[in-house]
Amino acid sequence: MSLSNSLISLPEIDQIMEQSMKSFLDFKKVNALDRAAFLERIAFEIEALGEELIKTTQEETNLPEARLLGERGRTTMQLRMFAAMLKEGSWVEASIDHAIPDKVPAKPDIRKMLVPTGPVVVFGASNFPYAYSTAGGDTASALASGCSVVVKAHPAHLKTSTLIASAIDKAIVCTNMPTHCFQHVAGNSFEIGKALVQHSFTSAVGFTGSFSGGRALYDYAAVRPKPIPVFSEMGSTNPVLLLPDALTLNAETIAIQYAGSITLGVGQFCTNPGILMGVSSDGLERFKKALANAIEQIAPSKMLHDGILKAYQNNRSKALQTKGVSALSNEVSSIENFATPVIAQVAGIDFLQNENLKEEVFGPYAILVECADIEELKNVWNTLSGQLTTSIMGTDVDFESQPDLIEMATLIAGRVLLNGVPTGVEVCASMVHGGPYPATTDSRFTAVGINAVKRWVRPVCFQNCPDHLLPDALKEQNPLKIKRMIDGNPYQ
Amino acid sequence: MSLSNSLISLPEIDQIMEQSMKSFLDFKKVNALDRAAFLERIAFEIEALGEELIKTTQEETNLPEARLLGERGRTTMQLRMFAAMLKEGSWVEASIDHAIPDKVPAKPDIRKMLVPTGPVVVFGASNFPYAYSTAGGDTASALASGCSVVVKAHPAHLKTSTLIASAIDKAIVCTNMPTHCFQHVAGNSFEIGKALVQHSFTSAVGFTGSFSGGRALYDYAAVRPKPIPVFSEMGSTNPVLLLPDALTLNAETIAIQYAGSITLGVGQFCTNPGILMGVSSDGLERFKKALANAIEQIAPSKMLHDGILKAYQNNRSKALQTKGVSALSNEVSSIENFATPVIAQVAGIDFLQNENLKEEVFGPYAILVECADIEELKNVWNTLSGQLTTSIMGTDVDFESQPDLIEMATLIAGRVLLNGVPTGVEVCASMVHGGPYPATTDSRFTAVGINAVKRWVRPVCFQNCPDHLLPDALKEQNPLKIKRMIDGNPYQ
Repeated sequence: MSLSNSLISLPEIDQIMEQSMKSFLDFKKVNALDRAAFLERIAFEIEALGEELIKTTQEETNLPEARLLGERGRTTMQLRMFAAMLKEGSWVEASIDHAIPDKVPAKPDIRKMLVPTGPVVVFGASNFPYAYSTAGGDTASALASGCSVVVKAHPAHLKTSTLIASAIDKAIVCTNMPTHCFQHVAGNSFEIGKALVQHSFTSAVGFTGSFSGGRALYDYAAVRPKPIPVFSEMGSTNPVLLLPDALTLNAETIAIQYAGSITLGVGQFCTNPGILMGVSSDGLERFKKALANAIEQIAPSKMLHDGILKAYQNNRSKALQTKGVSALSNEVSSIENFATPVIAQVAGIDFLQNENLKEEVFGPYAILVECADIEELKNVWNTLSGQLTTSIMGTDVDFESQPDLIEMATLIAGRVLLNGVPTGVEVCASMVHGGPYPATTDSRFTAVGINAVKRWVRPVCFQNCPDHLLPDALKEQNPLKIKRMIDGNPYQ
Repeated sequence: MSLSNSLISLPEIDQIMEQSMKSFLDFKKVNALDRAAFLERIAFEIEALGEELIKTTQEETNLPEARLLGERGRTTMQLRMFAAMLKEGSWVEASIDHAIPDKVPAKPDIRKMLVPTGPVVVFGASNFPYAYSTAGGDTASALASGCSVVVKAHPAHLKTSTLIASAIDKAIVCTNMPTHCFQHVAGNSFEIGKALVQHSFTSAVGFTGSFSGGRALYDYAAVRPKPIPVFSEMGSTNPVLLLPDALTLNAETIAIQYAGSITLGVGQFCTNPGILMGVSSDGLERFKKALANAIEQIAPSKMLHDGILKAYQNNRSKALQTKGVSALSNEVSSIENFATPVIAQVAGIDFLQNENLKEEVFGPYAILVECADIEELKNVWNTLSGQLTTSIMGTDVDFESQPDLIEMATLIAGRVLLNGVPTGVEVCASMVHGGPYPATTDSRFTAVGINAVKRWVRPVCFQNCPDHLLPDALKEQNPLKIKRMIDGNPYQ
């Protein structure tokens, strides 16, 4: 049950986390089908909020109605996806090794499955007020796993968050779930976040936002007497390689594609392509011209809030004032309090000498790095830190002459794209939305897709346990009819 | 290729890690069957060391020949198990989502698999000179994943470690692996360990040993500019519940079973049962008498080294001098420099008031906690920190009257045993050798069994990648014939 809209104080955190732990102990026993019904009911109750939700969020975030309708659809789809995962059931990675009494020494019966870790604290994103916020991917996957959840509302869309929390509360009542399996708290001081992360009952943390915020939560967790995992999804510049043959053949098409990706949602996506790299050539000149033209035709737009706009303008200015950097596109039109898309350009040699150019400029911005040759381009690519995505625009001719590029890409990013744009994260089982630090604090997990549930579980095995005392997932007759590993053979 | 036996200095670490990273980039491209042949060859070369290895280790560790032969067999079995895993191939968790061009927006083709993270640093255990040391579970699983490995030799068995390293070096040459995919370094200062963990090329750390050592490595890693996972397997007291009906029926049998487990290998196993809990009853009195009798008949033995013996004697004395604690068994015989098994006893109420009694006493020792009733017993159990294992000795009558015990056990430990002893860790797919902190620093992973490989990998997905450029595991025609998730359906 969510608290009211009022801000909480530090002493209240003890009570909230105690309630969360108490509810967790009940919630983890709720059977998977009932948990699935709960998630489906949350989706239903979010839809039932109707126009009030959309209007409230428009006021709080400046995001257009069509985008919010789409994001709401994605949010309810995610909840239903985790419900389907629970109904199917194989996600618990059940594994059975039968006893071999004749072995020396005798092999005991051992059976393993995943269990939830405990209360999870979620810090939602400002740029996804639905899909990565209060009832977003972190909350949905944690509830699916059987963990209780405490959401710290994002202050930039507190009314939206409170509305969504009310929908979850209704679903709790309707489906008869433990009262505090979900709680919603608000607080503007960073001390509240710190206290939630450091509370002894907190078992894991999900965060989507800035590098400084995500790293701070990680550091708070690491110095706990009992450290816990923190899944911070932070910044990414999503570097793009523009290979020579692709530019020769399709410079203009690629430019238009990327102008759209760079400015999609006013550049406020974590997969926004922020660094483009190419080798000096006629094709690159054509690309630059076409990209500048396309960008200059895109009208300025409002960002999520004024703080984000100011940060965009400051970071962009800093980048443009760096030695060797110039504007590739001109600010044709500008409107007060609106963000104008901008493309910067720099030579590879200057890029390599200015660390600050590698940092994300959150907003409708990218920098084009013009390299002297393919070796310099690879060099630039390799000096970048860990990324959510990296994209390669290339033809078969390009890949034949540079056969190691895809292998290299896997070292840099969680998602490797060929001939596409990184914005638009498909929600499916194969998606990896995560990547080497500083893209995330734990590259072994994804924040999107059903595997996101794996962040909130740990394996437990049962040795020599009579069948009737085992969880259903591990009973000999497989009453849940799930896929299991049997005696080391995958997925029988 | 291993360095010589000589101790390394801090400046050499840069060179070692650079070599490790360079070899990693080649080693990760080695195909799985060739990696399997390499692991098998390591097993062969270890066996080829013959008697020299066993004799050297006997001198360094005081462990008897039969135990070392058994442990060598386990070590080579583990290497062959990971080779078999590589040949079978499904461990990469391949997942394919086909494109749906008609969807709005269009769904791209996305394919996911696990890839190795980079150079891994391994700190071996003193108590398992083969199976959890130089070519033990951490090294075998990391090499299987495609990670390069740097082993920091345990100073207590440096000659053994160097011999094993020479066997790995031979296997590298014979199977034509990248020269530095395995390196062996020695150094007595903790600064060496710290520098290895904090080197920018290190991607993950495996450690088996003391709580202070394991936590220190975790802390070094957490404050890196780019944090990395540290898998420390540390101490555990492996609490045992002795339920009333089980004692009534089988007090003497259980006592003999546990006398064996407590003193197995001079109590030098991480799964050694250190805390036994029962409710005052005639059955418990019979158990105490039988346990004391059995323990007093077990002859003193040499521990791994004098430092461990001294720590055992000191920690045991401290426990015995705690308020309310008395000896349950008498020191019938003692031999200088040998460890005598001892059982302590304490009332539940006194145990709860003395935090130090919850700490592991590494050696042939256990404390019996006598509780006033089952509620106090549960209370004692619940106040213990995270454990590798917890065991319950109970009959159907016991479990019927206490139906929540198994559920409670999953909150405490990674392995829940019924009517058995925790010593003896079966190497199989269902084994979980791990548990909530402080048993390990990351309860989401196991150090034993094929899933140990999951510590050294992360998922990467490929979007819109032409079939001929994909890794074999993800090619449409499934040339490796592995189990894969297809369009969200588990394991086709």
